[in-house]
Amino acid sequence: MASSREKAESFRALHHGPGVLVLPNAWDVATARVFEEAGFPAVATSSAALLVSQGYPDGEGIPRREMVASVRRIASSLAIPLSADVVAGFGRTPRGATATVRKILEAGAVGINLEDHDPSGPALVPVRSQVRKLEAIRRLGTEIGIPLVINARTDALRHGAGSDADRFEEAIRRSIAYRDAGADCVYPMGLVDAPSISTFVRAVECPVNVMVRRGLPPVPELERLGVKRVSFGPAGAYAALGLLKKASEEIRVRGTYGPLVDGAISFEELNRLGVPRSAGGPPAAG
Amino acid sequence: MASSREKAESFRALHHGPGVLVLPNAWDVATARVFEEAGFPAVATSSAALLVSQGYPDGEGIPRREMVASVRRIASSLAIPLSADVVAGFGRTPRGATATVRKILEAGAVGINLEDHDPSGPALVPVRSQVRKLEAIRRLGTEIGIPLVINARTDALRHGAGSDADRFEEAIRRSIAYRDAGADCVYPMGLVDAPSISTFVRAVECPVNVMVRRGLPPVPELERLGVKRVSFGPAGAYAALGLLKKASEEIRVRGTYGPLVDGAISFEELNRLGVPRSAGGPPAAG
Repeated sequence: MASSREKAESFRALHHGPGVLVLPNAWDVATARVFEEAGFPAVATSSAALLVSQGYPDGEGIPRREMVASVRRIASSLAIPLSADVVAGFGRTPRGATATVRKILEAGAVGINLEDHDPSGPALVPVRSQVRKLEAIRRLGTEIGIPLVINARTDALRHGAGSDADRFEEAIRRSIAYRDAGADCVYPMGLVDAPSISTFVRAVECPVNVMVRRGLPPVPELERLGVKRVSFGPAGAYAALGLLKKASEEIRVRGTYGPLVDGAISFEELNRLGVPRSAGGPPAAG
Repeated sequence: MASSREKAESFRALHHGPGVLVLPNAWDVATARVFEEAGFPAVATSSAALLVSQGYPDGEGIPRREMVASVRRIASSLAIPLSADVVAGFGRTPRGATATVRKILEAGAVGINLEDHDPSGPALVPVRSQVRKLEAIRRLGTEIGIPLVINARTDALRHGAGSDADRFEEAIRRSIAYRDAGADCVYPMGLVDAPSISTFVRAVECPVNVMVRRGLPPVPELERLGVKRVSFGPAGAYAALGLLKKASEEIRVRGTYGPLVDGAISFEELNRLGVPRSAGGPPAAG
């Protein structure tokens, strides 16, 4: 198995190739392994999907140890790099956020998402506070020898002040500040249309992450726009739960099983996803 | 919120109405809550789906405390009855199996599935051993005042000795013995075709559980055949992971997002599934 340092370096390199890194977000071992077997070069977690699956609404309501335990289970099941969504760091201070990131790296992740949305309300964390958190996390990676990939998310497009144009400018300003604080990639939540993406990418001059949602340009167009990373966010959970809702309707109303059996994987496929890798063994065949 | 006694009684009554109890199997809070919101009167767990989601293959490889913790999270999130799959009871003796069931009931479940497949190999547990486990579990329910619903699964159709006809007879013999030991419902794994279902139901003279799979007659036909309960088993997980596999293929090959966005639920719907119920509050609107 590759070391955390090697995994972090190969994960970083995926942000600097000619194409777009397509990064699926999982929320448990089964979903992470499905994505690995499908051939993705790395997997991330979705905090919203992970938290809800365990009985917590999105945010930082989950005890940190439970979130870390989930990341450990997922990281242990994968041969490829895992990036963990740590919300706003489970701590208001640089010290609090780095303590969280240290545990996440010990659990086997080699990248993080850190957002600037204050989990206690609709406001944004002050930009200087977020910059200090990012600088401290970057120093931590240097200290412990894991060059983790930092994806700095800004919620300025949704929670910034002023007009749409003001918020767009604020998202760019924050992203540049986060880049200069050591972020490898910036992630303006809510950036969807091609002209805005193009403007944003040219303004920040570093890898930009966008999220799958209805209306997002297809991957080849994202590549032309200069996007370096597209993540699923909670879309996999929205889709999987939507399917269960549809299957429920079908069996309750018509008494038939179509959505439960069409396109389903087999017991053998499911079970294989839960078989632990032997240390040093090759990744499962895909 | 209803007490465990009330939930157990209402869950049992669902096996004795005129129709078929359609029982969806969940594996985490989000899937359990989706099923509750869809209007099902009760939810069960699927051990295969639950174990794999946490990084264990099907069987009893998961530490019992982790399985109990998962059941507690799910039971705490539901207003309706929850039945928990306890595999073969995490113990070879009646004492071991009742210790597991006690913990499961304390965690909030009001029903169990207990199978007669020996988790250490392909053989069946001797029928007298399984009968003693079932009798002990029934006594436990009486002692602690929770009239839990016991669904006794037999794997004789798959792992019994002899010809197909021998295994069918063995499944009937075992189901009758389990019924007489106190099971409320019997569950011959692998019973699919209408003639076999009809013969089985008439032979055992108690509620029979069948599992959703391709080829199973639709619910109205199951009702005519005398089936009292149809459960999803791991079908929900097979379907959800099949969808993620299909979505992965589409985004990797074509760069488009169809399976991730068509029929998906929204962020608000996802997040609502993770909001804890206030004690005594009404169930979420469906």
